[in-house]
Amino acid sequence: MKQISFTRGVPPNESIPVEKIAECAHDVTLQAGPSILQYAPAAGYAPLRQLIAERRDTSAENVVLGQGSLQILDILLHDPLQPGDVVAVEQPTYDRVLKLIRRAGLRILPIDLEDDGLNIEQLEEALRQGEKVRLIYVIPDFQNPTGRVMSLAKRVHLGELAQQYGFQIVEDSPYRASRYAGEKLRSIYALYPSQTIQLSSFSKIICPGLRVGYALLPPDIAQHVCAYAEDTYINPSYLNQAIVHCFIERGYLDSHLCELKDRYRQRLDVMQAMLEKTMASHATWTPTQGGFFIGLFLNGVSDNKSLIARAKQVALNLSNGAGFFVEGGKNFIRLPFCSVAPQDIEEGIQRLANVIQP
Amino acid sequence: MKQISFTRGVPPNESIPVEKIAECAHDVTLQAGPSILQYAPAAGYAPLRQLIAERRDTSAENVVLGQGSLQILDILLHDPLQPGDVVAVEQPTYDRVLKLIRRAGLRILPIDLEDDGLNIEQLEEALRQGEKVRLIYVIPDFQNPTGRVMSLAKRVHLGELAQQYGFQIVEDSPYRASRYAGEKLRSIYALYPSQTIQLSSFSKIICPGLRVGYALLPPDIAQHVCAYAEDTYINPSYLNQAIVHCFIERGYLDSHLCELKDRYRQRLDVMQAMLEKTMASHATWTPTQGGFFIGLFLNGVSDNKSLIARAKQVALNLSNGAGFFVEGGKNFIRLPFCSVAPQDIEEGIQRLANVIQP
Repeated sequence: MKQISFTRGVPPNESIPVEKIAECAHDVTLQAGPSILQYAPAAGYAPLRQLIAERRDTSAENVVLGQGSLQILDILLHDPLQPGDVVAVEQPTYDRVLKLIRRAGLRILPIDLEDDGLNIEQLEEALRQGEKVRLIYVIPDFQNPTGRVMSLAKRVHLGELAQQYGFQIVEDSPYRASRYAGEKLRSIYALYPSQTIQLSSFSKIICPGLRVGYALLPPDIAQHVCAYAEDTYINPSYLNQAIVHCFIERGYLDSHLCELKDRYRQRLDVMQAMLEKTMASHATWTPTQGGFFIGLFLNGVSDNKSLIARAKQVALNLSNGAGFFVEGGKNFIRLPFCSVAPQDIEEGIQRLANVIQP
Repeated sequence: MKQISFTRGVPPNESIPVEKIAECAHDVTLQAGPSILQYAPAAGYAPLRQLIAERRDTSAENVVLGQGSLQILDILLHDPLQPGDVVAVEQPTYDRVLKLIRRAGLRILPIDLEDDGLNIEQLEEALRQGEKVRLIYVIPDFQNPTGRVMSLAKRVHLGELAQQYGFQIVEDSPYRASRYAGEKLRSIYALYPSQTIQLSSFSKIICPGLRVGYALLPPDIAQHVCAYAEDTYINPSYLNQAIVHCFIERGYLDSHLCELKDRYRQRLDVMQAMLEKTMASHATWTPTQGGFFIGLFLNGVSDNKSLIARAKQVALNLSNGAGFFVEGGKNFIRLPFCSVAPQDIEEGIQRLANVIQP
């Protein structure tokens, strides 16, 4: 039986524009030469910082490029934060970030995630009770692992709370450009630029292997991040950033994004249709219009370990969803759909339904 | 007057093999495609790990690739080390490493550096007195900032102490391949592989901008490093590592290294001849046969700030050497020679001599 995996949230190999990357790599190396092959400032390749700034209607001093965006988050968790500081997160959230927060010796305050994003009353109540939140980490667009989108009203409310209680918002936005239907909402960064650090990357829209991520952030925090980054890795690879710059300048990104959206939209549609067809009485989930994931909360399941074991017997690989929770989540399964072919999505969800209700 | 800088230890731009890198970048991208552009294991591009292992007569499980080698050191300072642990260093040493050790909340134990390397009796005495050294950071080959080489006897003695007192040795070796005369000594890693983590990189022998560094280390420590790296930056850029692999496989590295050595040997010879000619009664230094630096200890100078200011007036840029010391070093100047043209080295040292003895 063919193995089907709903495990990692990665772009499919066939979506990687290999020839165009090869062309850009060759051309930028010859054109830019030592300026991208020598030691360089930690903030990243200036033309790409400038290009991102222009596209986001801000200035280059607000843009810091990194080796992926995760490492920029790790830096923020070490400076300005100090061990013992409180970091609020959506629950569930990106599992690796929970690890990073713990590793930095910070205290995690989990806030429930609702269909339309963070339970903002719960956060406000915690703040009112005296929780000294220094930073909140949220994924407002097509959240990992649930696919949920934070409503505009909640974005505004969160920004107000950040101003009132003096904390920073980290808005992680790797899936924001991956919208397959509907209209995008204003980002928290666009609403509250002085309270917000927006993280994003080209991993999901060009390819992960270039490791080009970035932050939009207030200039004073940008300086801190760069100083820390310089002492840690001197500078990120400018070659990779120059490849991304070239890829955008030549118009490849916009057309590539159209192709990706067509491919992923179909996969999302198939998954949602199959879930409706087979899982409506066994689970709940939030319908979505983009991103890489749907999150499934299984009815009447107290620990999905045995479910995962039974799925494995029918060649269906699932991850334990508890890792996305500070506590609980034992009835949660994340379903990434972008890297699975439509017929495999159909077959995989059918297998899942059969396992749940044999 | 032409500006002459003896400041940063970087390869000169004209030494960067731009065309060959462009060719390798293009070819490896087309050939390896998604396998170097997708998410991947944190340990790095397997063929390059294998190639380094073969060249170093070890196995690939002992090789971890990183984004430069500095970040691997930063990881080691966080895991297995804990805040408060003692890290011994040569004094003077690479200034950025002193920052990293302090930032990780570790205690620095500086050990004097002699002409033939670490004052090993001083280290042994500290150990005997009960200093719980967990790790020692040394640069045995063409040390930064002094250019000194640790004698074989001291390498052996250091390894014995590491075994006896149960600490790890970090042997930073970015300049080891840059020997312009004489015979190389066995590395500490070759002598004591289970006590030693050897760091190195391709920054000084291909170019810094690819950010390809690596560690040779015991497999259990390698696993720790990879787990930490994965949570920090998921994986390093495989594209850059594949470029390095291709550059070596096509035989470019060996011929490039010959060219570099010819260029740098001449510059070192000019600098040493000029120092002999002009500075013999004003300073002491250790003659060297490789690397990027000579370190100058100025006689009768208690604080070289005014000297640096006077040098600036004659268009000579120097760095304050005190940053390489935990304490002291106010009469120390590091002189990098690789990125300065021979006639500029001659002119620059003459200016320095004039400033010291007008």
